[in-house]
Amino acid sequence: MFIRFITTGGTIDKIYFDAMSRFEVGESQVKHILGEALVAFDFDVVSLFRKDSLDMTDADRSALRSHVENDDATRFVVTHGTDTMADTAAALAGLDDKTIVLTGALSPARFRSTDAVFNVGMAVAAAQVAPPGVYIAMSGQVFDGTKVRKNREANRFEAVE
Amino acid sequence: MFIRFITTGGTIDKIYFDAMSRFEVGESQVKHILGEALVAFDFDVVSLFRKDSLDMTDADRSALRSHVENDDATRFVVTHGTDTMADTAAALAGLDDKTIVLTGALSPARFRSTDAVFNVGMAVAAAQVAPPGVYIAMSGQVFDGTKVRKNREANRFEAVE
Amino acid sequence: MFIRFITTGGTIDKIYFDAMSRFEVGESQVKHILGEALVAFDFDVVSLFRKDSLDMTDADRSALRSHVENDDATRFVVTHGTDTMADTAAALAGLDDKTIVLTGALSPARFRSTDAVFNVGMAVAAAQVAPPGVYIAMSGQVFDGTKVRKNREANRFEAVE
Amino acid sequence: MFIRFITTGGTIDKIYFDAMSRFEVGESQVKHILGEALVAFDFDVVSLFRKDSLDMTDADRSALRSHVENDDATRFVVTHGTDTMADTAAALAGLDDKTIVLTGALSPARFRSTDAVFNVGMAVAAAQVAPPGVYIAMSGQVFDGTKVRKNREANRFEAVE
Repeated sequence: MFIRFITTGGTIDKIYFDAMSRFEVGESQVKHILGEALVAFDFDVVSLFRKDSLDMTDADRSALRSHVENDDATRFVVTHGTDTMADTAAALAGLDDKTIVLTGALSPARFRSTDAVFNVGMAVAAAQVAPPGVYIAMSGQVFDGTKVRKNREANRFEAVE
Repeated sequence: MFIRFITTGGTIDKIYFDAMSRFEVGESQVKHILGEALVAFDFDVVSLFRKDSLDMTDADRSALRSHVENDDATRFVVTHGTDTMADTAAALAGLDDKTIVLTGALSPARFRSTDAVFNVGMAVAAAQVAPPGVYIAMSGQVFDGTKVRKNREANRFEAVE
Repeated sequence: MFIRFITTGGTIDKIYFDAMSRFEVGESQVKHILGEALVAFDFDVVSLFRKDSLDMTDADRSALRSHVENDDATRFVVTHGTDTMADTAAALAGLDDKTIVLTGALSPARFRSTDAVFNVGMAVAAAQVAPPGVYIAMSGQVFDGTKVRKNREANRFEAVE
Repeated sequence: MFIRFITTGGTIDKIYFDAMSRFEVGESQVKHILGEALVAFDFDVVSLFRKDSLDMTDADRSALRSHVENDDATRFVVTHGTDTMADTAAALAGLDDKTIVLTGALSPARFRSTDAVFNVGMAVAAAQVAPPGVYIAMSGQVFDGTKVRKNREANRFEAVE
C-alpha cells in the first residue's frame, strides 16, 4: 500500500513569527505526524505550494490536478487550507481510479491542541478504504468532496445537498 | 451519522502512578481526543472494561460481542490493548450490518508523542466508509480484522494470509 | 509563600483565529501552566491587559506600577510581551521590598513546543529567591531588569552594561 | 554563566515499554527541555545514573558528591527521582561555593501534562540566583534542601522544621 501526500499550505502548517507577530505557512507537518503515528506503509510527501487557501488560484488547482493525473499512485492525501478546500475538491473531480482525500486543520498542527493529527489519520484511512473519488476528511467526517462546505460561523464542515 | 465508542482499556489509556512507579489503565482518553479533533457528528462512549488486553478473557469477549449485537448502532469504534486486539476482532466477526473498527495505541494517549490520536482518527473514518465487517486500524493501516497480527518484535501490526 | 501574577498579554498568550488567519492575545495561560506544574503555594492571577507589548503605553506602565505599589504582596510575576519587556521593567524599578520578575515567551504557550512553561518556572523561582528588585527571566536566564535587552535578530534576551 | 546538569534517573525520565507494559528510566529529557526553552547560556549534561530513586545507594550518593566536589563548575542542576531526593540533598550539603539545585518530576517529562519543564525552569533560575548551598525545586517552590520532605499521600514536597 502506497499513499502520495501532497501539501499545499493552509492553517495545518502555520507557524508563528515572533519578530512580526504573525502567522505564516511553514514547513509541512505531515512527515512529523506520520512519524509519531508509527505508520508502517510506504509513502512519499510532495510539497506543491505553501499558501493560505484563499490565495489558491485556478492555475494552482490545474497544476494540482495535473500532478495527480500524471502520478502513477492511486491513493492521495492532499493537505490544504480550509477556506477553499471544497473548491479544490471540485477541481479534482472526475479522475478515474484515483482515491483523493483532502484534509487540513482548523487549529495549526504545531499547537498543543489541534485537529491536525486526527484529520490526517482520517484521511489516511479513507484513502485506503474509500472507492475512487474525491473526499474531504474534516470535523470527524469523510464527506463526498463535491457535496460539502465549510460553515465559517460554526467553524466546521458540513454536508450540502 | 452516529458512532458508538466502546473502551476496554489497553496502552492507549495508560496513566502513571508515581506512588507505585507503575502504569495502570486510567480513564479513557477517547472523549478528550474527539474534543480536540473538533468532531461534529453524534457519538456516545461506553466504558466496558479497563484492562490490559492480556487480561481479556473469553467471557469479556462474549460480553463485548453481546453488547455490539444488542446495540441499535451500526458503526462502532472499540479501543483495546494491542497484544490481543486480533483475538477480540476474531470474536466480533460475523455480525451482519455492523461496521466495527478496533484501534488502540503503542504509546499512551497521555504522552506528548503518541499514535493514539491518529489511530482514533483512522478508526472513525473507517467506521464511516468501510462496509460492514470487523477491522483493525493500527500502524497507519486499516486491516481486515481476521487477517492481521501484532508483530511484537517490530512493534507494528501487519497483514497475514 | 504567596505570589501575585499579573498578566498583560504578549506572545505567551497568543491564540490563532482561523476565521481571520491571525493571532490575537487570548485568555492567559498562567493558571493552566501552574496547574500542570502541580504547584503547592498560594497565588492569585490578575489580568491587567491583553496587549501586544508594542501597544503598551506609558499610561499602561504607570497603571501597572501603581497596581504593584498598592498591592500588599511582596512577590510578583508579570507576564508580558517580549518586545518592550525591558521598558516595562525599567518603569517598575525603585519599589522597595518588592521582588518583581517579568517573563513571557518567544513561542506561544499554546504551542506544542514553547518556552512559556520553562520561563514561568524560572520566574516563580526567582520571585522566591531573589532579593527585592526588578528582574527579567527569559532565554534561560534571570537578568537584572534594568540591564537587559531583547536581541531581535538572534531572538533572545542578553545582558547589557 | 555556566550550569552543569547531572542526571540520575527518576520519574522525570521515565519511558513506557509497550512490550513489557512497564515504565523504565530512559534517556534524559534535560537537553530536549533546554532546547524547547530557547536557553542562551552555556551548559553541559552529565548522565551519571539511570535509576529509580528508591534504588540510589549510599555509594551512588558518594559518587555524586565527589563528582560535584571535583567539578570546576559552581552551579549545578541535578535531576533525580522524587522519593529519595531529600536524602541525596542531605548527602550534598556542606560543599563551599557550590549552588546545587535538585529537581525532578511527579509526572514524566514525556507526558503531555507534566511538571518536568516547569521544575527544570525553577532549578535553572535558582542555580543562578541562590547563594551557595543545596536546594530542592519542586511543587512550585525552592526549598532549603535540608529542610524538605516529599509528602507521598499529598503527592507534593513541603518544608519541614
